[in-house]
Amino acid sequence: MFITKEKKEVPSIFEDGVPSLVRLSRSYDNPHWYNIAHVHSSDTELVFISSGRASFTINQKTFLVEKGDILIVEKGFIHSTISDAKEPSDIFSCSVANYKIRGMERNYLLRSPNVLPVMKSGSHEEFLRYCWREMQAYQEMEDPISRSICDMIAGSIAGLYYSLFFNQTETYEIPAPHFTQDILIYIYEHYCENITLELLSKVFHMSAGHISHEFSKAFGISPINYAINLKLDQAKWLLIQSEKSLTEIAAEIGYQNLQHFTNIFQKRNGCTPLEFKEKYSHKKKLLY
Amino acid sequence: MFITKEKKEVPSIFEDGVPSLVRLSRSYDNPHWYNIAHVHSSDTELVFISSGRASFTINQKTFLVEKGDILIVEKGFIHSTISDAKEPSDIFSCSVANYKIRGMERNYLLRSPNVLPVMKSGSHEEFLRYCWREMQAYQEMEDPISRSICDMIAGSIAGLYYSLFFNQTETYEIPAPHFTQDILIYIYEHYCENITLELLSKVFHMSAGHISHEFSKAFGISPINYAINLKLDQAKWLLIQSEKSLTEIAAEIGYQNLQHFTNIFQKRNGCTPLEFKEKYSHKKKLLY
Repeated sequence: MFITKEKKEVPSIFEDGVPSLVRLSRSYDNPHWYNIAHVHSSDTELVFISSGRASFTINQKTFLVEKGDILIVEKGFIHSTISDAKEPSDIFSCSVANYKIRGMERNYLLRSPNVLPVMKSGSHEEFLRYCWREMQAYQEMEDPISRSICDMIAGSIAGLYYSLFFNQTETYEIPAPHFTQDILIYIYEHYCENITLELLSKVFHMSAGHISHEFSKAFGISPINYAINLKLDQAKWLLIQSEKSLTEIAAEIGYQNLQHFTNIFQKRNGCTPLEFKEKYSHKKKLLY
Repeated sequence: MFITKEKKEVPSIFEDGVPSLVRLSRSYDNPHWYNIAHVHSSDTELVFISSGRASFTINQKTFLVEKGDILIVEKGFIHSTISDAKEPSDIFSCSVANYKIRGMERNYLLRSPNVLPVMKSGSHEEFLRYCWREMQAYQEMEDPISRSICDMIAGSIAGLYYSLFFNQTETYEIPAPHFTQDILIYIYEHYCENITLELLSKVFHMSAGHISHEFSKAFGISPINYAINLKLDQAKWLLIQSEKSLTEIAAEIGYQNLQHFTNIFQKRNGCTPLEFKEKYSHKKKLLY
Protein backbone atom coordinates (compact mmCIF):
# COMPACT_ATOMS: atom_id res chain seq x y z
CA MET A 1 0.00 0.00 0.00
CA PHE A 2 1.35 3.35 -1.03
CA ILE A 3 -0.26 6.65 -0.24
CA THR A 4 0.98 10.00 -1.30
CA LYS A 5 -0.46 13.45 -1.16
CA GLU A 6 0.70 16.40 -3.18
CA LYS A 7 0.24 19.66 -1.37
CA LYS A 8 -0.98 22.83 -3.01
CA GLU A 9 0.28 26.21 -1.89
CA VAL A 10 -1.89 27.54 0.92
CA PRO A 11 -0.96 30.74 2.77
CA SER A 12 0.29 30.15 6.31
CA ILE A 13 -1.82 31.28 9.26
CA PHE A 14 1.39 32.70 10.75
CA GLU A 15 1.74 36.05 9.03
CA ASP A 16 5.07 36.85 10.52
CA GLY A 17 7.19 33.73 10.33
CA VAL A 18 7.64 31.18 13.10
CA PRO A 19 6.78 32.10 16.71
CA SER A 20 9.87 32.32 18.93
CA LEU A 21 10.23 30.08 21.94
CA VAL A 22 10.98 32.50 24.79
CA ARG A 23 10.64 30.24 27.83
CA LEU A 24 10.58 26.51 28.49
CA SER A 25 9.53 25.12 31.89
CA ARG A 26 8.87 21.86 33.62
CA SER A 27 7.57 21.35 37.14
CA TYR A 28 7.58 17.81 38.43
CA ASP A 29 8.52 15.48 41.21
CA ASN A 30 7.31 17.81 43.96
CA PRO A 31 3.93 17.24 45.65
CA HIS A 32 4.22 20.66 47.29
CA TRP A 33 4.91 22.54 44.11
CA TYR A 34 3.11 25.77 43.46
CA ASN A 35 3.58 28.79 41.27
CA ILE A 36 2.35 32.04 42.78
CA ALA A 37 0.09 34.40 40.89
CA HIS A 38 1.95 36.13 38.11
CA VAL A 39 1.48 37.47 34.65
CA HIS A 40 3.44 37.62 31.41
CA SER A 41 3.29 40.90 29.61
CA SER A 42 4.15 39.87 26.07
CA ASP A 43 4.06 36.11 25.49
CA THR A 44 1.58 33.25 25.32
CA GLU A 45 2.15 30.29 27.63
CA LEU A 46 1.22 26.86 26.27
CA VAL A 47 0.78 24.27 29.00
CA PHE A 48 0.60 20.45 28.85
CA ILE A 49 -0.17 18.25 31.85
CA SER A 50 2.01 15.22 31.25
CA SER A 51 0.87 13.38 34.39
CA GLY A 52 -0.77 13.84 37.77
CA ARG A 53 -3.21 16.54 38.79
CA ALA A 54 -3.01 20.25 39.53
CA SER A 55 -5.20 23.29 39.88
CA PHE A 56 -4.72 26.34 37.70
CA THR A 57 -6.22 29.68 38.53
CA ILE A 58 -6.56 31.94 35.52
CA ASN A 59 -8.35 35.29 35.80
CA GLN A 60 -9.61 34.25 39.24
CA LYS A 61 -11.31 31.15 37.85
CA THR A 62 -9.90 27.83 39.10
CA PHE A 63 -9.57 24.85 36.76
CA LEU A 64 -8.74 21.35 37.96
CA VAL A 65 -6.53 19.73 35.37
CA GLU A 66 -5.16 16.23 34.91
CA LYS A 67 -2.94 14.12 32.66
CA GLY A 68 -3.45 14.97 29.01
CA ASP A 69 -5.05 18.38 29.55
CA ILE A 70 -3.79 21.43 27.70
CA LEU A 71 -4.06 25.09 28.67
CA ILE A 72 -3.42 28.45 27.09
CA VAL A 73 -2.42 31.41 29.26
CA GLU A 74 -2.63 34.53 27.13
CA LYS A 75 -0.45 37.52 27.85
CA GLY A 76 -1.85 39.71 30.63
CA PHE A 77 -3.77 36.79 32.22
CA ILE A 78 -2.97 36.52 35.94
CA HIS A 79 -2.43 32.87 36.74
CA SER A 80 -1.20 30.56 39.49
CA THR A 81 -0.77 26.80 39.89
CA ILE A 82 -0.78 24.28 42.72
CA SER A 83 0.21 20.66 42.27
CA ASP A 84 -2.04 17.99 43.72
CA ALA A 85 -0.31 16.55 46.80
CA LYS A 86 -1.52 12.96 46.30
CA GLU A 87 -0.98 12.85 42.54
CA PRO A 88 1.86 15.33 41.93
CA SER A 89 1.72 16.90 38.54
CA ASP A 90 4.33 16.82 35.81
CA ILE A 91 3.65 19.99 33.86
CA PHE A 92 5.41 21.15 30.72
CA SER A 93 5.06 24.65 29.42
CA CYS A 94 6.53 26.70 26.64
CA SER A 95 5.99 30.37 25.99
CA VAL A 96 5.94 31.82 22.50
CA ALA A 97 6.16 35.39 21.26
CA ASN A 98 6.81 37.38 18.08
CA TYR A 99 3.97 35.86 16.11
CA LYS A 100 0.77 36.96 14.49
CA ILE A 101 -1.99 34.67 13.36
CA ARG A 102 -4.03 35.83 10.37
CA GLY A 103 -7.13 37.70 11.55
CA MET A 104 -5.93 37.87 15.18
CA GLU A 105 -4.19 40.48 17.32
CA ARG A 106 -0.42 40.03 17.56
CA ASN A 107 0.67 37.41 20.15
CA TYR A 108 -2.84 36.11 20.84
CA LEU A 109 -3.93 32.52 20.33
CA LEU A 110 -7.51 32.37 21.67
CA ARG A 111 -10.12 33.74 19.30
CA SER A 112 -11.73 35.54 22.26
CA PRO A 113 -10.50 36.17 25.83
CA ASN A 114 -13.44 34.36 27.40
CA VAL A 115 -12.92 31.07 25.56
CA LEU A 116 -12.40 28.37 28.21
CA PRO A 117 -8.60 28.01 28.14
CA VAL A 118 -8.53 24.33 29.19
CA MET A 119 -9.30 21.21 27.18
CA LYS A 120 -8.22 17.59 26.58
CA SER A 121 -5.41 16.96 24.12
CA GLY A 122 -7.09 13.67 23.14
CA SER A 123 -5.32 11.92 20.26
CA HIS A 124 -2.54 14.52 20.30
CA GLU A 125 -1.29 13.64 23.79
CA GLU A 126 1.70 11.52 22.81
CA PHE A 127 2.76 13.91 20.08
CA LEU A 128 2.78 16.76 22.60
CA ARG A 129 4.73 14.74 25.18
CA TYR A 130 7.44 14.00 22.60
CA CYS A 131 7.50 17.63 21.42
CA TRP A 132 8.42 18.79 24.93
CA ARG A 133 10.94 15.99 25.41
CA GLU A 134 12.60 16.99 22.16
CA MET A 135 12.68 20.68 23.10
CA GLN A 136 14.15 19.83 26.48
CA ALA A 137 16.87 17.74 24.87
CA TYR A 138 17.88 20.81 22.87
CA GLN A 139 17.22 23.52 25.44
CA GLU A 140 20.67 23.57 27.02
CA MET A 141 22.28 24.28 23.67
CA GLU A 142 22.08 27.87 22.59
CA ASP A 143 23.41 27.38 19.05
CA PRO A 144 21.24 28.53 16.13
CA ILE A 145 20.44 24.99 14.95
CA SER A 146 19.12 23.82 18.33
CA ARG A 147 17.21 27.06 18.77
CA SER A 148 15.62 26.81 15.35
CA ILE A 149 14.49 23.26 16.04
CA CYS A 150 12.95 24.42 19.35
CA ASP A 151 11.25 27.36 17.62
CA MET A 152 9.80 25.06 14.95
CA ILE A 153 8.50 22.59 17.54
CA ALA A 154 7.05 25.40 19.68
CA GLY A 155 5.45 26.75 16.50
CA SER A 156 3.93 23.32 15.80
CA ILE A 157 2.45 23.27 19.31
CA ALA A 158 1.14 26.84 18.92
CA GLY A 159 -0.53 25.88 15.60
CA LEU A 160 -2.02 22.75 17.15
CA TYR A 161 -3.33 24.63 20.22
CA TYR A 162 -4.78 27.36 18.00
CA SER A 163 -6.55 24.69 15.93
CA LEU A 164 -7.91 22.79 18.96
CA PHE A 165 -9.07 25.88 20.87
CA PHE A 166 -10.57 27.32 17.68
CA ASN A 167 -13.25 24.64 18.12
CA GLN A 168 -13.60 25.14 21.87
CA THR A 169 -17.26 25.94 22.41
CA GLU A 170 -17.19 26.51 26.19
CA THR A 171 -16.62 29.98 27.58
CA TYR A 172 -16.26 31.41 31.08
CA GLU A 173 -16.91 34.73 32.71
CA ILE A 174 -13.86 36.90 33.11
CA PRO A 175 -14.20 39.21 36.12
CA ALA A 176 -14.28 42.90 35.34
CA PRO A 177 -10.82 44.49 35.45
CA HIS A 178 -9.91 45.54 38.98
CA PHE A 179 -7.15 47.89 40.05
CA THR A 180 -5.57 45.17 42.21
CA GLN A 181 -4.62 43.35 38.99
CA ASP A 182 -2.61 46.36 37.88
CA ILE A 183 -0.90 46.39 41.27
CA LEU A 184 -0.04 42.71 40.97
CA ILE A 185 1.41 43.26 37.50
CA TYR A 186 3.38 46.26 38.80
CA ILE A 187 4.84 44.26 41.69
CA TYR A 188 5.61 41.29 39.41
CA GLU A 189 7.52 43.55 37.04
CA HIS A 190 9.40 45.41 39.81
CA TYR A 191 9.81 42.88 42.63
CA CYS A 192 13.61 43.06 42.57
CA GLU A 193 13.36 46.70 43.50
CA ASN A 194 12.33 47.77 46.97
CA ILE A 195 8.53 47.45 46.95
CA THR A 196 6.87 49.31 49.82
CA LEU A 197 3.28 50.28 50.49
CA GLU A 198 4.37 53.92 50.30
CA LEU A 199 5.76 53.37 46.81
CA LEU A 200 2.56 51.59 45.66
CA SER A 201 0.49 54.35 47.20
CA LYS A 202 2.44 56.92 45.20
CA VAL A 203 2.28 54.96 41.92
CA PHE A 204 -1.43 54.16 42.15
CA HIS A 205 -2.67 57.33 43.88
CA MET A 206 -4.45 55.42 46.64
CA SER A 207 -3.97 55.09 50.37
CA ALA A 208 -1.57 52.38 51.53
CA GLY A 209 -4.31 50.86 53.71
CA HIS A 210 -6.78 50.60 50.82
CA ILE A 211 -4.19 49.01 48.55
CA SER A 212 -3.16 46.50 51.19
CA HIS A 213 -6.74 45.58 52.08
CA GLU A 214 -8.01 45.20 48.51
CA PHE A 215 -4.92 43.34 47.28
CA SER A 216 -5.11 40.85 50.17
CA LYS A 217 -8.81 40.36 49.52
CA ALA A 218 -8.21 39.66 45.84
CA PHE A 219 -5.14 37.42 46.10
CA GLY A 220 -5.08 36.12 49.68
CA ILE A 221 -1.68 37.62 50.33
CA SER A 222 -0.46 41.12 51.18
CA PRO A 223 1.40 43.09 48.47
CA ILE A 224 4.64 43.02 50.48
CA ASN A 225 4.48 39.30 51.16
CA TYR A 226 3.72 38.74 47.50
CA ALA A 227 6.88 40.65 46.55
CA ILE A 228 8.93 38.64 49.07
CA ASN A 229 7.57 35.36 47.67
CA LEU A 230 8.52 36.41 44.17
CA LYS A 231 12.04 37.23 45.38
CA LEU A 232 12.43 33.92 47.16
CA ASP A 233 11.09 31.93 44.21
CA GLN A 234 13.60 33.61 41.96
CA ALA A 235 16.32 32.89 44.55
CA LYS A 236 15.39 29.18 44.56
CA TRP A 237 15.60 29.06 40.81
CA LEU A 238 19.00 30.76 40.76
CA LEU A 239 20.28 28.44 43.51
CA ILE A 240 19.40 25.38 41.45
CA GLN A 241 20.09 26.61 37.95
CA SER A 242 23.06 28.93 38.27
CA GLU A 243 26.52 28.85 39.75
CA LYS A 244 26.07 32.31 41.24
CA SER A 245 27.22 32.98 44.82
CA LEU A 246 24.75 33.70 47.63
CA THR A 247 25.87 37.34 47.65
CA GLU A 248 25.23 37.66 43.93
CA ILE A 249 21.82 36.00 44.20
CA ALA A 250 20.79 38.17 47.16
CA ALA A 251 21.83 41.31 45.26
CA GLU A 252 20.04 40.19 42.10
CA ILE A 253 16.70 39.91 43.90
CA GLY A 254 17.20 43.18 45.79
CA TYR A 255 18.70 42.18 49.15
CA GLN A 256 21.83 44.20 49.84
CA ASN A 257 22.20 42.48 53.21
CA LEU A 258 23.15 38.78 52.87
CA GLN A 259 22.19 37.94 56.46
CA HIS A 260 18.76 39.45 55.95
CA PHE A 261 18.28 37.31 52.81
CA THR A 262 19.47 34.14 54.56
CA ASN A 263 17.20 34.77 57.56
CA ILE A 264 14.08 35.36 55.53
CA PHE A 265 14.84 32.40 53.24
CA GLN A 266 15.30 30.05 56.21
CA LYS A 267 12.21 31.33 57.98
CA ARG A 268 9.99 30.72 54.95
CA ASN A 269 11.55 27.56 53.53
CA GLY A 270 12.71 25.73 56.65
CA CYS A 271 16.26 25.45 55.36
CA THR A 272 19.14 27.76 54.48
CA PRO A 273 19.77 28.75 50.85
CA LEU A 274 22.83 26.46 50.71
CA GLU A 275 20.92 23.50 52.12
CA PHE A 276 18.26 24.14 49.49
CA LYS A 277 20.88 24.22 46.73
CA GLU A 278 22.44 21.01 48.07
CA LYS A 279 19.09 19.24 48.16
CA TYR A 280 17.74 20.17 44.73
CA SER A 281 20.46 21.05 42.29
CA HIS A 282 21.28 17.43 41.40
CA LYS A 283 17.67 17.00 40.29
CA LYS A 284 18.30 19.35 37.43
CA LYS A 285 19.77 16.37 35.65
CA LEU A 286 16.48 14.52 35.73
CA LEU A 287 15.26 16.63 32.89
CA TYR A 288 17.47 15.17 30.25
CA MET B 1 11.20 20.47 41.22
CA PHE B 2 10.78 23.38 38.86
CA ILE B 3 12.98 24.12 35.92
CA THR B 4 12.67 27.01 33.62
CA LYS B 5 14.81 28.42 30.90
CA GLU B 6 14.56 31.90 29.47
CA LYS B 7 15.57 32.03 25.84
CA LYS B 8 17.63 34.78 24.31
CA GLU B 9 17.05 35.91 20.75
CA VAL B 10 19.12 33.79 18.36
CA PRO B 11 18.72 34.19 14.59
CA SER B 12 16.95 31.26 12.92
CA ILE B 13 18.88 28.96 10.60
CA PHE B 14 15.91 29.22 8.24
CA GLU B 15 16.53 32.46 6.38
CA ASP B 16 13.32 32.43 4.50
CA GLY B 17 10.61 31.40 6.91
CA VAL B 18 9.28 27.90 7.40
CA PRO B 19 9.85 25.22 4.73
CA SER B 20 6.63 24.21 2.93
CA LEU B 21 5.44 20.64 3.04
CA VAL B 22 4.89 19.75 -0.63
CA ARG B 23 4.35 16.00 -0.46
CA LEU B 24 3.50 13.47 2.26
CA SER B 25 3.79 9.73 1.62
CA ARG B 26 3.49 6.45 3.41
CA SER B 27 4.21 2.99 2.01
CA TYR B 28 3.26 0.07 4.19
CA ASP B 29 1.49 -3.24 4.44
CA ASN B 30 2.85 -4.55 1.13
CA PRO B 31 5.78 -6.97 1.05
CA HIS B 32 6.03 -6.46 -2.72
CA TRP B 33 6.17 -2.71 -2.57
CA TYR B 34 8.72 -0.89 -4.65
CA ASN B 35 9.20 2.62 -5.96
CA ILE B 36 10.91 2.82 -9.33
CA ALA B 37 13.85 5.10 -9.94
CA HIS B 38 12.78 8.71 -10.02
CA VAL B 39 13.96 12.16 -9.14
CA HIS B 40 12.50 15.33 -7.66
CA SER B 41 13.59 18.49 -9.35
CA SER B 42 12.98 21.03 -6.60
CA ASP B 43 12.31 19.53 -3.17
CA THR B 44 14.09 17.59 -0.43
CA GLU B 45 12.60 14.27 0.63
CA LEU B 46 12.89 13.38 4.33
CA VAL B 47 12.40 9.66 4.97
CA PHE B 48 11.76 7.74 8.20
CA ILE B 49 11.65 3.93 8.42
CA SER B 50 8.93 3.32 11.01
CA SER B 51 9.24 -0.47 10.88
CA GLY B 52 10.53 -3.37 8.80
CA ARG B 53 13.35 -3.32 6.30
CA ALA B 54 13.90 -1.94 2.81
CA SER B 55 16.64 -1.12 0.38
CA PHE B 56 17.11 2.38 -0.96
CA THR B 57 19.22 3.10 -4.00
CA ILE B 58 20.41 6.70 -4.15
CA ASN B 59 22.84 7.83 -6.82
CA GLN B 60 23.41 4.17 -7.76
CA LYS B 61 24.53 3.29 -4.23
CA THR B 62 22.29 0.85 -2.36
CA PHE B 63 21.60 1.27 1.36
CA LEU B 64 19.87 -1.37 3.46
CA VAL B 65 17.69 0.40 5.98
CA GLU B 66 15.64 -0.76 8.96
CA LYS B 67 13.31 0.49 11.70
CA GLY B 68 14.44 3.81 13.11
CA ASP B 69 16.66 4.81 10.19
CA ILE B 70 16.35 8.21 8.58
CA LEU B 71 17.31 9.28 5.06
CA ILE B 72 17.63 12.47 3.10
CA VAL B 73 17.05 12.49 -0.66
CA GLU B 74 18.22 15.84 -2.01
CA LYS B 75 16.68 17.31 -5.14
CA GLY B 76 18.19 15.87 -8.31
CA PHE B 77 19.18 12.59 -6.60
CA ILE B 78 17.91 9.59 -8.56
CA HIS B 79 16.46 7.11 -6.08
CA SER B 80 14.42 3.93 -5.86
CA THR B 81 13.14 1.72 -3.05
CA ILE B 82 12.24 -1.93 -2.56
CA SER B 83 10.53 -3.26 0.57
CA ASP B 84 11.96 -6.35 2.21
CA ALA B 85 9.57 -9.24 1.47
CA LYS B 86 9.99 -10.98 4.85
CA GLU B 87 9.91 -7.84 6.99
CA PRO B 88 7.80 -5.41 4.95
CA SER B 89 8.70 -1.82 5.56
CA ASP B 90 6.49 0.96 6.85
CA ILE B 91 8.08 4.07 5.41
CA PHE B 92 7.02 7.66 6.02
CA SER B 93 8.31 10.48 3.91
CA CYS B 94 7.68 14.18 3.61
CA SER B 95 9.11 16.53 1.03
CA VAL B 96 9.91 20.14 1.80
CA ALA B 97 10.63 23.08 -0.45
CA ASN B 98 10.81 26.88 -0.38
CA TYR B 99 13.48 27.05 2.31
CA LYS B 100 17.02 28.24 2.68
CA ILE B 101 19.31 27.35 5.55
CA ARG B 102 21.90 29.95 6.50
CA GLY B 103 25.16 29.27 4.68
CA MET B 104 23.60 26.64 2.37
CA GLU B 105 22.26 26.65 -1.17
CA ARG B 106 18.47 27.08 -1.40
CA ASN B 107 16.52 23.81 -0.85
CA TYR B 108 19.54 21.77 0.25
CA LEU B 109 19.85 20.06 3.62
CA LEU B 110 23.13 18.08 3.40
CA ARG B 111 26.25 20.15 3.91
CA SER B 112 27.83 18.31 0.96
CA PRO B 113 26.34 15.99 -1.72
CA ASN B 114 28.60 13.07 -0.76
CA VAL B 115 27.57 12.97 2.93
CA LEU B 116 26.16 9.50 3.59
CA PRO B 117 22.41 10.23 3.48
CA VAL B 118 21.40 7.45 5.91
CA MET B 119 21.69 7.27 9.70
CA LYS B 120 19.93 6.10 12.87
CA SER B 121 17.36 8.42 14.45
CA GLY B 122 18.38 7.13 17.90
CA SER B 123 16.62 8.96 20.73
CA HIS B 124 14.50 10.93 18.24
CA GLU B 125 12.68 7.88 16.86
CA GLU B 126 9.43 8.23 18.80
CA PHE B 127 9.26 11.96 18.23
CA LEU B 128 9.59 11.42 14.48
CA ARG B 129 6.93 8.68 14.47
CA TYR B 130 4.47 11.02 16.19
CA CYS B 131 5.35 13.89 13.88
CA TRP B 132 4.30 11.84 10.86
CA ARG B 133 1.18 10.54 12.58
CA GLU B 134 0.19 14.10 13.39
CA MET B 135 0.83 15.30 9.82
CA GLN B 136 -1.19 12.41 8.44
CA ALA B 137 -4.09 13.23 10.73
CA TYR B 138 -4.15 16.71 9.21
CA GLN B 139 -3.21 15.88 5.64
CA GLU B 140 -6.71 15.37 4.31
CA MET B 141 -7.72 18.86 5.39
CA GLU B 142 -6.62 21.59 3.07
CA ASP B 143 -7.58 24.53 5.28
CA PRO B 144 -4.88 27.05 6.23
CA ILE B 145 -4.74 25.98 9.89
CA SER B 146 -4.13 22.30 9.11
CA ARG B 147 -1.62 23.22 6.44
CA SER B 148 0.28 25.54 8.75
CA ILE B 149 0.50 22.83 11.42
CA CYS B 150 1.85 20.39 8.80
CA ASP B 151 4.36 22.98 7.56
CA MET B 152 5.58 23.62 11.11
CA ILE B 153 5.95 19.91 11.85
CA ALA B 154 7.74 19.31 8.53
CA GLY B 155 9.96 22.28 9.38
CA SER B 156 10.75 20.70 12.78
CA ILE B 157 11.74 17.47 11.03
CA ALA B 158 13.85 19.38 8.49
CA GLY B 159 15.65 21.22 11.31
CA LEU B 160 16.21 17.97 13.19
CA TYR B 161 17.52 16.14 10.09
CA TYR B 162 19.79 19.07 9.27
CA SER B 163 21.18 18.96 12.81
CA LEU B 164 21.69 15.18 12.84
CA PHE B 165 23.28 14.97 9.37
CA PHE B 166 25.42 18.00 10.15
CA ASN B 167 27.36 15.63 12.42
CA GLN B 168 27.38 12.73 9.94
CA THR B 169 31.04 11.89 9.40
CA GLU B 170 30.62 9.11 6.81
CA THR B 171 30.67 9.91 3.13
CA TYR B 172 30.21 7.86 -0.06
CA GLU B 173 31.37 8.12 -3.61
CA ILE B 174 28.85 9.62 -6.00
CA PRO B 175 29.32 8.26 -9.53
CA ALA B 176 30.31 10.78 -12.17
CA PRO B 177 27.30 12.30 -13.94
CA HIS B 178 26.22 10.17 -16.90
CA PHE B 179 23.94 11.15 -19.75
CA THR B 180 21.53 8.31 -18.89
CA GLN B 181 20.61 10.23 -15.71
CA ASP B 182 19.47 13.16 -17.83
CA ILE B 183 17.42 10.79 -19.94
CA LEU B 184 15.78 9.31 -16.83
CA ILE B 185 14.95 12.78 -15.54
CA TYR B 186 13.55 13.74 -18.95
CA ILE B 187 11.32 10.66 -19.09
CA TYR B 188 10.21 11.17 -15.46
CA GLU B 189 9.16 14.70 -16.23
CA HIS B 190 7.41 13.86 -19.52
CA TYR B 191 6.08 10.33 -19.07
CA CYS B 192 2.47 11.33 -19.65
CA GLU B 193 3.43 12.44 -23.14
CA ASN B 194 4.22 9.91 -25.83
CA ILE B 195 7.81 8.88 -25.12
CA THR B 196 9.47 7.10 -28.06
CA LEU B 197 13.07 6.21 -28.80
CA GLU B 198 12.87 8.52 -31.81
CA LEU B 199 11.87 11.43 -29.57
CA LEU B 200 14.68 10.71 -27.10
CA SER B 201 17.12 10.39 -29.98
CA LYS B 202 16.07 13.84 -31.20
CA VAL B 203 16.19 15.47 -27.74
CA PHE B 204 19.57 14.01 -26.77
CA HIS B 205 21.26 13.98 -30.21
CA MET B 206 22.19 10.30 -29.97
CA SER B 207 21.16 7.18 -31.83
CA ALA B 208 18.10 5.35 -30.51
CA GLY B 209 20.13 2.16 -30.16
CA HIS B 210 22.81 3.81 -28.06
CA ILE B 211 20.24 5.44 -25.78
CA SER B 212 18.33 2.20 -25.30
CA HIS B 213 21.47 0.16 -24.63
CA GLU B 214 23.08 2.60 -22.18
CA PHE B 215 19.84 3.34 -20.31
CA SER B 216 19.07 -0.37 -19.88
CA LYS B 217 22.62 -0.95 -18.69
CA ALA B 218 22.36 1.84 -16.08
CA PHE B 219 18.85 1.16 -14.74
CA GLY B 220 18.06 -2.44 -15.69
CA ILE B 221 15.03 -1.42 -17.71
CA SER B 222 14.52 0.02 -21.19
CA PRO B 223 13.51 3.68 -21.52
CA ILE B 224 10.12 2.75 -22.98
CA ASN B 225 9.34 0.22 -20.25
CA TYR B 226 10.43 2.75 -17.67
CA ALA B 227 7.93 5.27 -19.08
CA ILE B 228 5.17 2.62 -19.09
CA ASN B 229 5.92 1.73 -15.44
CA LEU B 230 5.68 5.38 -14.46
CA LYS B 231 2.31 5.64 -16.22
CA LEU B 232 0.97 2.52 -14.54
CA ASP B 233 2.19 3.59 -11.09
CA GLN B 234 0.42 6.90 -11.52
CA ALA B 235 -2.69 5.03 -12.70
CA LYS B 236 -2.64 2.87 -9.56
CA TRP B 237 -2.39 5.93 -7.36
CA LEU B 238 -5.28 7.64 -9.14
CA LEU B 239 -7.38 4.47 -8.93
CA ILE B 240 -6.97 4.34 -5.16
CA GLN B 241 -6.91 8.02 -4.27
CA SER B 242 -9.29 9.67 -6.72
CA GLU B 243 -12.85 9.21 -7.88
CA LYS B 244 -11.84 9.68 -11.52
CA SER B 245 -13.24 7.38 -14.21
CA LEU B 246 -11.06 4.90 -16.09
CA THR B 247 -11.33 7.07 -19.22
CA GLU B 248 -10.14 10.12 -17.31
CA ILE B 249 -7.26 8.23 -15.70
CA ALA B 250 -6.16 6.72 -19.02
CA ALA B 251 -6.21 10.16 -20.66
CA GLU B 252 -4.31 11.73 -17.76
CA ILE B 253 -1.40 9.33 -18.15
CA GLY B 254 -1.38 9.61 -21.93
CA TYR B 255 -3.49 6.68 -23.18
CA GLN B 256 -6.14 7.91 -25.61
CA ASN B 257 -7.32 4.34 -26.10
CA LEU B 258 -9.01 2.91 -23.00
CA GLN B 259 -8.75 -0.69 -24.21
CA HIS B 260 -5.03 -0.28 -24.76
CA PHE B 261 -4.63 1.03 -21.18
CA THR B 262 -6.74 -1.79 -19.71
CA ASN B 263 -4.79 -4.42 -21.62
CA ILE B 264 -1.37 -3.19 -20.61
CA PHE B 265 -2.48 -2.70 -16.98
CA GLN B 266 -3.85 -6.23 -16.77
CA LYS B 267 -0.81 -7.73 -18.43
CA ARG B 268 1.59 -6.09 -15.99
CA ASN B 269 -0.43 -6.24 -12.79
CA GLY B 270 -2.37 -9.48 -13.15
CA CYS B 271 -5.71 -7.75 -12.63
CA THR B 272 -7.85 -5.14 -14.39
CA PRO B 273 -7.78 -1.51 -13.23
CA LEU B 274 -11.22 -1.87 -11.65
CA GLU B 275 -10.23 -5.04 -9.79
CA PHE B 276 -7.19 -3.17 -8.51
CA LYS B 277 -9.32 -0.26 -7.33
CA GLU B 278 -11.72 -2.66 -5.63
CA LYS B 279 -8.90 -4.44 -3.85
CA TYR B 280 -6.95 -1.48 -2.55
CA SER B 281 -9.07 1.61 -2.20
CA HIS B 282 -10.53 0.61 1.19
CA LYS B 283 -6.96 0.45 2.56
CA LYS B 284 -6.69 4.19 2.15
CA LYS B 285 -8.55 4.41 5.44
CA LEU B 286 -5.79 2.58 7.29
CA LEU B 287 -3.77 5.74 7.29
CA TYR B 288 -5.89 7.67 9.73
